[in-house]
Amino acid sequence: MSENDVPDPLKIVHYLLKDDPFSLWMGVEVEEARTGYCRISCTVTESMLNGFSVTHGGIIFSLADTALAFSAATYGRVSLAIDNSISFLKKSTNGDKIIVISDVIHITHKTGVFEVNVKNSNEELIALMKGTVYRTGEIIKISE
Amino acid sequence: MSENDVPDPLKIVHYLLKDDPFSLWMGVEVEEARTGYCRISCTVTESMLNGFSVTHGGIIFSLADTALAFSAATYGRVSLAIDNSISFLKKSTNGDKIIVISDVIHITHKTGVFEVNVKNSNEELIALMKGTVYRTGEIIKISE
Amino acid sequence: MSENDVPDPLKIVHYLLKDDPFSLWMGVEVEEARTGYCRISCTVTESMLNGFSVTHGGIIFSLADTALAFSAATYGRVSLAIDNSISFLKKSTNGDKIIVISDVIHITHKTGVFEVNVKNSNEELIALMKGTVYRTGEIIKISE
Amino acid sequence: MSENDVPDPLKIVHYLLKDDPFSLWMGVEVEEARTGYCRISCTVTESMLNGFSVTHGGIIFSLADTALAFSAATYGRVSLAIDNSISFLKKSTNGDKIIVISDVIHITHKTGVFEVNVKNSNEELIALMKGTVYRTGEIIKISE
Repeated sequence: MSENDVPDPLKIVHYLLKDDPFSLWMGVEVEEARTGYCRISCTVTESMLNGFSVTHGGIIFSLADTALAFSAATYGRVSLAIDNSISFLKKSTNGDKIIVISDVIHITHKTGVFEVNVKNSNEELIALMKGTVYRTGEIIKISE
Repeated sequence: MSENDVPDPLKIVHYLLKDDPFSLWMGVEVEEARTGYCRISCTVTESMLNGFSVTHGGIIFSLADTALAFSAATYGRVSLAIDNSISFLKKSTNGDKIIVISDVIHITHKTGVFEVNVKNSNEELIALMKGTVYRTGEIIKISE
Repeated sequence: MSENDVPDPLKIVHYLLKDDPFSLWMGVEVEEARTGYCRISCTVTESMLNGFSVTHGGIIFSLADTALAFSAATYGRVSLAIDNSISFLKKSTNGDKIIVISDVIHITHKTGVFEVNVKNSNEELIALMKGTVYRTGEIIKISE
Repeated sequence: MSENDVPDPLKIVHYLLKDDPFSLWMGVEVEEARTGYCRISCTVTESMLNGFSVTHGGIIFSLADTALAFSAATYGRVSLAIDNSISFLKKSTNGDKIIVISDVIHITHKTGVFEVNVKNSNEELIALMKGTVYRTGEIIKISE
């Protein structure tokens, strides 16, 4: 299979999500996917909070990391996050809808850099992540 | 209360953990805490995996972020992670014990930098995080 | 002086540059400055290269760091970079013009997060930096 | 040439330095090199300062980046920094000696993660960098 024959990005992302227990636990929903891009969302629940009744930073990162992985996978190859840097900008809490957009900045044969914007439902940025992935040679095979 | 009267670090950390739903969901256990330092552990469960049956990067980050928050809190003031950079080095999976050590690198009145080592039970490094916190003026009050 | 009385951003930036020996050594020129934003440029010289005849990563970072410092200073207070994460995307070399744009992402009383885009003269991104600054209480006084 | 036949790490590092105009401009001296490790030093001069008479953050990063590149090169293959995250901890100024130690944290066939400690002559940490390199297939050939 050449890179020209990669499955539809949205199919890839739904295929990855259905076997991803932690993303399913967070209630991740796929809103859009195209090559190099993925938008997901979820609603914060009480079990995602930290000791200050604020969404745990780990949840915000996890959503960003899932969006990053999905956007990197749209190219059809298994890709692994190797280095992620996240800035936490604004709090969110129980009941808030979180929207996460991962978009490719630069991609080479072996690595890719993505920017991930995490927003609340007022379109305010609550976190910004820069993620670097390593692109393995392994093709994502969708068994239908 | 002056900074000389801060509660025992281990008391602070246990106090934070008992109201931290997400850390409790991950099964975080506190192993050691002293000023500027915290070691926690957890065992990976199936619901913490991603679509490749590997511990979700978000879980690894979340454990590191919890350890960071706890170690920063040992000084007695509410501290907020503002910028975290994590490198993912090695995979882990269902059933693996994860040990996370956060240690202060440098602290000023308003900010602190911590290094967080995430290891498996063979003492192999599986992730390395550098975290920066902002130290608010708010004292952590332990209601007993 | 209240924050409403801060000097003109462009005046602040020119004032900082004229006493900044290293930025002057790199040949930094200020192209634009407004509150939270600064665009600078420079032309790579042979003494800015590394052992592979490519612009030294340190020079690319230095330009980004200068733009970050200048954009943070436009608010009128001395601000210090505390944590910067940079991704190197594309090479440049002797004679290339480099354009660097730092733009505020989020600012609070004590901290600020900026995104810095480093481009070549073909508008291609050669590096992307996310920078966090600590905002001191010290006002930048322009002695005229 | 197999990886077992790589030249002596110290020879590699001196070979890289002699053609690295910017590191030479900074006055970088190699103090030690072994596989996965390099220690360099330099003395801050007036032209390395910023507008606050403090060593420019770009210089601190540049020294860290040079040490990172040198330590990654000790394995014998051309390696490129792809993502570096630096925390600035303490100021330095004109006349200060800076010592920079880059040490491997984890290395795979294609990528490597290094920790770089930047210290002053009192052994105080002035910056901490985590650097990720991409390891090309190109062998460093030392023409003698």
